[in-house]
Amino acid sequence: MKKIITISREFGSGGRFIGEALAKELNFAFYDKNIIEQVAQETGLSEKYIAERGEYALSHNRFSYGFIGRTMQGNSVDDLIYQAQTNIICDLAEKGNCVIVGRCADYILRNRSDVLNVFIHGNKAEKAQRIMNLYGKTEQEALVLMKDTDKKRAVNYAYCTDQKWGVSKNYALCMNSSILGYETCIEIIKGCL
Amino acid sequence: MKKIITISREFGSGGRFIGEALAKELNFAFYDKNIIEQVAQETGLSEKYIAERGEYALSHNRFSYGFIGRTMQGNSVDDLIYQAQTNIICDLAEKGNCVIVGRCADYILRNRSDVLNVFIHGNKAEKAQRIMNLYGKTEQEALVLMKDTDKKRAVNYAYCTDQKWGVSKNYALCMNSSILGYETCIEIIKGCL
Repeated sequence: MKKIITISREFGSGGRFIGEALAKELNFAFYDKNIIEQVAQETGLSEKYIAERGEYALSHNRFSYGFIGRTMQGNSVDDLIYQAQTNIICDLAEKGNCVIVGRCADYILRNRSDVLNVFIHGNKAEKAQRIMNLYGKTEQEALVLMKDTDKKRAVNYAYCTDQKWGVSKNYALCMNSSILGYETCIEIIKGCL
Repeated sequence: MKKIITISREFGSGGRFIGEALAKELNFAFYDKNIIEQVAQETGLSEKYIAERGEYALSHNRFSYGFIGRTMQGNSVDDLIYQAQTNIICDLAEKGNCVIVGRCADYILRNRSDVLNVFIHGNKAEKAQRIMNLYGKTEQEALVLMKDTDKKRAVNYAYCTDQKWGVSKNYALCMNSSILGYETCIEIIKGCL
């Protein structure tokens, strides 16, 4: 029986929306940006800083890793954030039924047998339209933001997990939300628990 | 409304079984190895030859392409098989509701809006066990056969489609049959039509 659902998602695919709706329907806890607050508490770093770097932490300054942002213990700040996220996600999973969006949770929880890993992607046009509507962007801005955000997520995921983001074998279930629709995606995930 | 289901699958994942069971339940036509007979009729090549090369055609002799197996028209025999497969799959799709397994059907039918593309994969241990049971192989033989077959499929797919086999964005739906189970996979696909 799966009681923890991790959702990885392309930007604009509605993955977060699907996760939140699913959590509501199932009466599961929902963890997304609220993880940031906990990371802030654990690390003493500001929420703003973590919000900017948390999910993309290790995709920045990869090559300057040894020279900047080191803590007293000799770890980079990015490592500190990732370690805090790892601890928090493991603790949250222990607490019981939940949906966790992003933050390499699929990989962090890889040794548990009660986790269902889902990847949500979509067609470029539908994703751009969603970003335009949600964030008041032009189509051009939406396309740039989409490309940039997904690139950072992919690099960060590769660095933290040694796996390739969006490759089907890393997930129990991958769905194109533009083709299937959000409601069908939600129903499918429910049917897998 | 989707009325054509293409199933791409890792060797041993039960993708063919899922496709066949689905076709029976839905009363859809099922096309798999029977495409070979039609390719044989269209090309004049033997079924045995096509069975060996049909799905993996272009993964052999890639670099000797210009020197061997050319027809009178200057195409390689592999191109001839692929072109025949393309014509046949387009014709089959025109005939109505069906499930088509393998043979780059997802790519060949990419311009139709009534096609649902599915990729079935699985865990190594479960796939190896299935191959041992179905083909009377040892575990070692099953692992080698699995690796070899999937490699050929991936190379052939890349060559024919310029896309990467098994990357989630090429399919509406990707499922790990070892985690979800065959029955759940069938139910999920039915729910997407």
